Amino acid sequence: MKAEVLTIGDELLRGEIIDSNKALLSQRLLDLDIETRFQTSVRDDPPDMRDAFRRAASRCDCVLVSGGLGPTRDDLTTQVLAESFGLELELDEEALEGIRAFFQQVGREMTQNNASQAYFPSGAEVLPNPIGTAPGFALEAQGALFFAMPGVPRELQRMLDEQVMPRLAARSQRDGPVVRARLLRTFGVGESSLDSQLSDIATDADLELGFRTSFPDNTLRPLCRAASAEAAEARLATLCAEIRQRLGAIVYGEGEAGMEQVVGELLAERGASLAVAESCTGGGIAERISEVPGASRYFLGGVVAYADSAKRELLDVPEALLARHGAVSEPVVRAMAEGVRARFGASLGIATTGISGPGGGSDDKPVGLVHIALADAAGTHAEHFVFPLDRARHRRLTTQTALDWVRRRLLGAELIGPSLLRRQGGASAPRDAR
Amino acid sequence: MKAEVLTIGDELLRGEIIDSNKALLSQRLLDLDIETRFQTSVRDDPPDMRDAFRRAASRCDCVLVSGGLGPTRDDLTTQVLAESFGLELELDEEALEGIRAFFQQVGREMTQNNASQAYFPSGAEVLPNPIGTAPGFALEAQGALFFAMPGVPRELQRMLDEQVMPRLAARSQRDGPVVRARLLRTFGVGESSLDSQLSDIATDADLELGFRTSFPDNTLRPLCRAASAEAAEARLATLCAEIRQRLGAIVYGEGEAGMEQVVGELLAERGASLAVAESCTGGGIAERISEVPGASRYFLGGVVAYADSAKRELLDVPEALLARHGAVSEPVVRAMAEGVRARFGASLGIATTGISGPGGGSDDKPVGLVHIALADAAGTHAEHFVFPLDRARHRRLTTQTALDWVRRRLLGAELIGPSLLRRQGGASAPRDAR
Repeated sequence: MKAEVLTIGDELLRGEIIDSNKALLSQRLLDLDIETRFQTSVRDDPPDMRDAFRRAASRCDCVLVSGGLGPTRDDLTTQVLAESFGLELELDEEALEGIRAFFQQVGREMTQNNASQAYFPSGAEVLPNPIGTAPGFALEAQGALFFAMPGVPRELQRMLDEQVMPRLAARSQRDGPVVRARLLRTFGVGESSLDSQLSDIATDADLELGFRTSFPDNTLRPLCRAASAEAAEARLATLCAEIRQRLGAIVYGEGEAGMEQVVGELLAERGASLAVAESCTGGGIAERISEVPGASRYFLGGVVAYADSAKRELLDVPEALLARHGAVSEPVVRAMAEGVRARFGASLGIATTGISGPGGGSDDKPVGLVHIALADAAGTHAEHFVFPLDRARHRRLTTQTALDWVRRRLLGAELIGPSLLRRQGGASAPRDAR
Repeated sequence: MKAEVLTIGDELLRGEIIDSNKALLSQRLLDLDIETRFQTSVRDDPPDMRDAFRRAASRCDCVLVSGGLGPTRDDLTTQVLAESFGLELELDEEALEGIRAFFQQVGREMTQNNASQAYFPSGAEVLPNPIGTAPGFALEAQGALFFAMPGVPRELQRMLDEQVMPRLAARSQRDGPVVRARLLRTFGVGESSLDSQLSDIATDADLELGFRTSFPDNTLRPLCRAASAEAAEARLATLCAEIRQRLGAIVYGEGEAGMEQVVGELLAERGASLAVAESCTGGGIAERISEVPGASRYFLGGVVAYADSAKRELLDVPEALLARHGAVSEPVVRAMAEGVRARFGASLGIATTGISGPGGGSDDKPVGLVHIALADAAGTHAEHFVFPLDRARHRRLTTQTALDWVRRRLLGAELIGPSLLRRQGGASAPRDAR
């Protein structure tokens, strides 16, 4: 099957919004082995929309449309899609009832405009929107299957996963084998190293293994085709187990949960607690770990010790260490990790100090240098790295490495350091995201 | 002029990358009063690329292309663009020299593939790329002006601003009046309030005033058309001054600098220093303020006091206050701001405590409640808000409000609180970003 992703809205064409819906829709299509051939965006303009709908129907088998389902005069997707293929609009009583119920639930008054959202092209199948006012719909037109969804990302994602994906899976199954895919997240080795470590895996014709770089991670996408859903899932489970066994702790998670969620779940499971002492990352580790709802179960807090005086006074780093070795040094990062662990009474203390740039480097301590330390009841481990990256990506890679250390320590795995990276062939700086 | 933005790359169509280039390109076009009519993405596939180039030339006056200029076999933009319009490729000696110099500078070896990047469609004007290996080019074909630029965002942005924008400005001037626009950033009042406060401004035919919502800000885009660049710039300067006078401290900056940069510059100018005590924002304020290169001149650090024990022991919040009022309360936020200011010896201390959700609320203290306090030599100011937003946006709006307080205090302006919001008609929750 060939797909087109079509997003609609003046705000996109004015560049007011970075359109993340396109990437989400294309990712999900790929999970069903459906290739996105075109991504298109047009304004809320009937002639341009009409051209886009008709062209999409002529060149693709399925068209995922996002945006233009709202209640305002600018929201024209339903009406123009119907016109484009000579269809009438019809009231769907059930959808009207749903919209009415939504307004009752949130305690707001329903307007006539909102009622207009219960009209759909004749022959369309209504797709409920449990968290917004705009239902979506599925429509077969000129041999192409259209799915119209809201533009609000969280409403889109829910409708996509609950309503659209099962229908697309059924359709693509009708046309060929059942496909199942997963996303395995890895951190710490490069794409070429992953590729060579897995070169003899997934070589059968019904299996595929895709590699993606999504800074600072590399992800794997094992995919399986089979005659039935059960067979595809079983084969995929075996394949994933084989990959995990081969790669060990390099695989840190599966699906959409990021490192901060994986680490949070592990901390909660083990009844462990974490405190962080940050210099160059400036609060970035704390920010990520506390982004996860319920983080207060395991995250006690941290000290952002940007000034040396803060390292002394809030983290008990001895003045002599700072004077002798400088703030960016192994003795200081060790003292920071131990200090924050003691101050917060945490089972784990993690610390960073480095030079994220662009200024502040010297011959001895170049821009990109960063020290990381992890303290627990058994002692303190420290390493240093040089990441030749711009400030934002230096901070991102450092926070990811620090969180990964916490994960590896809780799992009893070796912590990533320059030597582990060398052994696994992943020492090169991660590729640019593009 | 009508424009199309065309981005090329398999990684886009697989959803591996959220394509921020499209928004950047469309924003810049709008600064020249050029409307983006279509945004299109295609794979690294010659037939699809050819169709896209030809269609763009047939429906638009200028086409901004990004991606496909690299040295690998997947990078086909130059070759396919030439083929699409029956042009030969020609070696540009100067570009070859530039690529050679680039490799010498970064100490890497130049391959034959890199040399291929010095070939361009005949008639093209080469656009230098001072920070990457791939030069871009401008090409007139079938009445449309194509600009081919790299896909790497920082290379794209530099080439766009230094090479493409001046050429586009000259071209659009040839076809009509000179246009100049600016972006004014505002925080603290809603779009409708801005609109009504400025209803009698920019009513002349040569002026325009656009409004955009970019959570949590609202931005204004004053635009001016005139016969010469000097006249347009002078008229625009007058218009901006008028808007700033009308809105006062609501306008916090201009162009691309965010609140953290504006606050950083003010702190540096005044020789002031800042320390932060964060509970619900979890390090987000520290992370933002330290994101700016050189932040160590004014940012001393902070305490992320997620656990109550940290509020007591690192911020000297009295146990009795915590027991009596709870962690999310005005007395506690005041003590946090004063405590962090004293501990770090900062001129300004700012603190947050609240319930970002989704869990943790009660009848007394609902999800969305947040207290903010600012302590300085003159005393401590505290307010509370209820922001009915999801966790990520609650945290974002809170960090922005806290940073805005620092800015307003340094400027001697009234701090934003519920009463100021009510007076200025901006009390409603900011609109969704979409």
